Amino acid sequence: MNTSIVRYVLGWILKIEALLMLLPFVVGIIYSEKEAFSYLIALSICGVLGIIFTLKKPESSIFYLKEGCVATALSWIFLSLFGCLPFMLTGEIPAFHDALFETISGFTTTGASILSDVEALSHCTIFWRSFTHWIGGMGVLVFLLAIIPLSGGSNINLMRAESPGPSVGKLVPKIRYTARLLYIIYIILTTIQIVLLLLGKMPLFEAITTSFGTAGTGGFGIKNDSMMGYSPYIQWVVTIFMILFGVNFNAYYFIFLKEFKKAFCIEEVRCYFLIIFISTTIIFLNILQTGMKVGDCLRHAAFQVGSIMTSTGFATADFNLWPETSKTILVLLMFIGACAGSTGGGIKVSRIVIMIKTVFKELHSYIHPKSIKKIKMDGKPVEHEVVRAINVYFITFIILFTLSVFALSFEGHDLITNFTAVIATLNNIGPGLELVGPTGNFGFFSPFSKYVLMFDMLAGRLELFPLLILFHPNLWSEMIHSKRKMH
Amino acid sequence: MNTSIVRYVLGWILKIEALLMLLPFVVGIIYSEKEAFSYLIALSICGVLGIIFTLKKPESSIFYLKEGCVATALSWIFLSLFGCLPFMLTGEIPAFHDALFETISGFTTTGASILSDVEALSHCTIFWRSFTHWIGGMGVLVFLLAIIPLSGGSNINLMRAESPGPSVGKLVPKIRYTARLLYIIYIILTTIQIVLLLLGKMPLFEAITTSFGTAGTGGFGIKNDSMMGYSPYIQWVVTIFMILFGVNFNAYYFIFLKEFKKAFCIEEVRCYFLIIFISTTIIFLNILQTGMKVGDCLRHAAFQVGSIMTSTGFATADFNLWPETSKTILVLLMFIGACAGSTGGGIKVSRIVIMIKTVFKELHSYIHPKSIKKIKMDGKPVEHEVVRAINVYFITFIILFTLSVFALSFEGHDLITNFTAVIATLNNIGPGLELVGPTGNFGFFSPFSKYVLMFDMLAGRLELFPLLILFHPNLWSEMIHSKRKMH
Repeated sequence: MNTSIVRYVLGWILKIEALLMLLPFVVGIIYSEKEAFSYLIALSICGVLGIIFTLKKPESSIFYLKEGCVATALSWIFLSLFGCLPFMLTGEIPAFHDALFETISGFTTTGASILSDVEALSHCTIFWRSFTHWIGGMGVLVFLLAIIPLSGGSNINLMRAESPGPSVGKLVPKIRYTARLLYIIYIILTTIQIVLLLLGKMPLFEAITTSFGTAGTGGFGIKNDSMMGYSPYIQWVVTIFMILFGVNFNAYYFIFLKEFKKAFCIEEVRCYFLIIFISTTIIFLNILQTGMKVGDCLRHAAFQVGSIMTSTGFATADFNLWPETSKTILVLLMFIGACAGSTGGGIKVSRIVIMIKTVFKELHSYIHPKSIKKIKMDGKPVEHEVVRAINVYFITFIILFTLSVFALSFEGHDLITNFTAVIATLNNIGPGLELVGPTGNFGFFSPFSKYVLMFDMLAGRLELFPLLILFHPNLWSEMIHSKRKMH
Repeated sequence: MNTSIVRYVLGWILKIEALLMLLPFVVGIIYSEKEAFSYLIALSICGVLGIIFTLKKPESSIFYLKEGCVATALSWIFLSLFGCLPFMLTGEIPAFHDALFETISGFTTTGASILSDVEALSHCTIFWRSFTHWIGGMGVLVFLLAIIPLSGGSNINLMRAESPGPSVGKLVPKIRYTARLLYIIYIILTTIQIVLLLLGKMPLFEAITTSFGTAGTGGFGIKNDSMMGYSPYIQWVVTIFMILFGVNFNAYYFIFLKEFKKAFCIEEVRCYFLIIFISTTIIFLNILQTGMKVGDCLRHAAFQVGSIMTSTGFATADFNLWPETSKTILVLLMFIGACAGSTGGGIKVSRIVIMIKTVFKELHSYIHPKSIKKIKMDGKPVEHEVVRAINVYFITFIILFTLSVFALSFEGHDLITNFTAVIATLNNIGPGLELVGPTGNFGFFSPFSKYVLMFDMLAGRLELFPLLILFHPNLWSEMIHSKRKMH
């Protein structure tokens, strides 16, 4: 294995993280908070280590799938390990496992928090917390690819490992161009949201941090009651932008190229809107019976559907108290998730659509055993390899889900809490039901359970395999072997 | 489609059902119960209809997979529709949807009951209720194949559709011989259990009905407290036999042929016993903390693990009150189920093993992209088609599971009740948790929910596709088409 390129990428990640930490430092200076200096210390550590890691250029910059996965997984782990330093240095989250949980939850855009009082935090820490969502949403390696020149086309393996969904990266042949374009779309959309929130009389600081949480489909609230206290206008703006950030970015790419027909014909995006529409309608009718006003019902239904389906996790209502049908729909949406190629998490709409098509194809084959029918998406046949990969992904997902629920069961909390805590972290959503519902938090879990959930958050964000292969014994024996060969 | 052979098979099914109803009739006569005559009426109806259906021999006895599936699905539906007649005629279960639920639960060996007072039933009804388990356990079409001569090798499609698990039917080339052999093993094992229960001073009637419920891995209790009131000896006997009936019958076939080494080397059977051992140990240690005696803990742990994993559903303890870890393990075991080729339900151990191997193969391919590694079972490579079928089965299972939980959610019961009610019926187990726990029953559900659960029980027993294709529109248009062609 090409370990030197992995080291080189990790070095760059640390340098970027140092750069990113400048922002919360500046925020802290503006609000003249003493916590700002903790950020200065943390960014110095990152910067120095980053420079040391990148001193020696790698012998070869060839990236195979294996290197891509390892570099991605380790990048995210490094990012989180160093990203949690400021939380500990400021003393706002003193315990290491809590600080790491909060940071991983941030970068993976989960939004599950161990804090019970968010409003007590300093401005710089609130900013950094929300900023991790924004960075993690589009992916830090995508950012890396957008700014540094890594030679060769093989670094598509880096992007492939980080981008959500089964088929990203084929669209534009030039990786660097794609990476830049993605970030440009991302920045434009975020800016529009900030402006719209300012128009709704939201203070600038809140508008920026809320938009970071929306854009990354993260969901860290900056208020203890998440979004419950904001005006209906602001809640609707956030609803719309959560849904927009859950759309496959290919659609925006087509709009960018003015190919509007192509943009509106993407099957996944159509299904995505259809599911949102149906779920919102059913929940709207369901909570209407609880005696709420029609307008409020519609707003709460749309907000919660958008928030859960896109895996954001903001809340305008305590849906843990909603009727059973609404809760069941929300749990189902937790599994589905957003579109592939968006900032959202979950199994992804395209995977679900292909899996449902597989079932119909199977039924068809029972009735017409000799017919050869291929599964199609957007009118084009889906490669057998893609279908196979989706099946394996789904099985792995369920196995990981099961093992995690089992691991959490030792703590003795109820099954719904454990079940939804795992799905909320594995799909990078944030809140679940019962103890981890929108008004609860993850602070009560034991350190062991927290590490399990941290693993789930990372596994979910990296789409399982890039993280799982770190545990394959062959990988490490090979790494040691290649090190020995070098000396 | 060859509709005449389907009609012919259905006729035979009804004739067999008439024959089987003779037994509860005789039981009723012995106990001089007036309910016996309801069985006489019901069996006469079955008999007459069966004779009419089989008057005309089919033009062709060729069975393709499609005919096999349709005949199997309709056989089970007919069997249940006519099997519920006595319950209604005796007035013991007056409502049609309740009687049908109880009958489907019996034949599919689920054991979920709508009755709150079982002990109030007449002996003939208790007998018929338990007897449906025994018939459904091995399968009525297997019985049909064992007794009537259907020409041609293509009737393997009948057996394939009814037998649980992915690979049954390849073992012995002669279907009729296999079918007979399966029933011989089944009868021998049942008889041994009856004798052992009699040695434990259980009355003959109870020994027979309990053995029927065990052999079919059904779980209808004949007492209101299931097996809680029986002696530890009897509970241990039932534990051992539940586990024995959950073993792949291929193992018994090898023992029958005195090929002991082959019998003990079946990978699925080894995994099955390993899972039972591990689960029992963990639950034992877990419930030991509740202050129970060591011997009782071991007995209850082993009984409940055997009962849930083999999808029987008997209970010696109210596991709904157990600690969270034990409950979580039991829920996981509900999904796994017994071995393929046994009378038990669930996803089946072999499918789970192959799915886990698929995940490891995938991980391996990330590290060694060029290596071609085939998944192996029992040392032999598993065909790609089998792996594909298992993946599709699993996806279909989860989709059906999801839709059912959603359908049940409209009633407003808690998520755990709905969740475990669906898994307990889809995997033909019987009891779930909360409202449908071992001390509860399914009587409180609305007729709509009951029909959903009935569908799940049939889908689970027939391994999804044979039942699902009944809903494929092409099937019915083709049937009408073939009818027209004949005239």
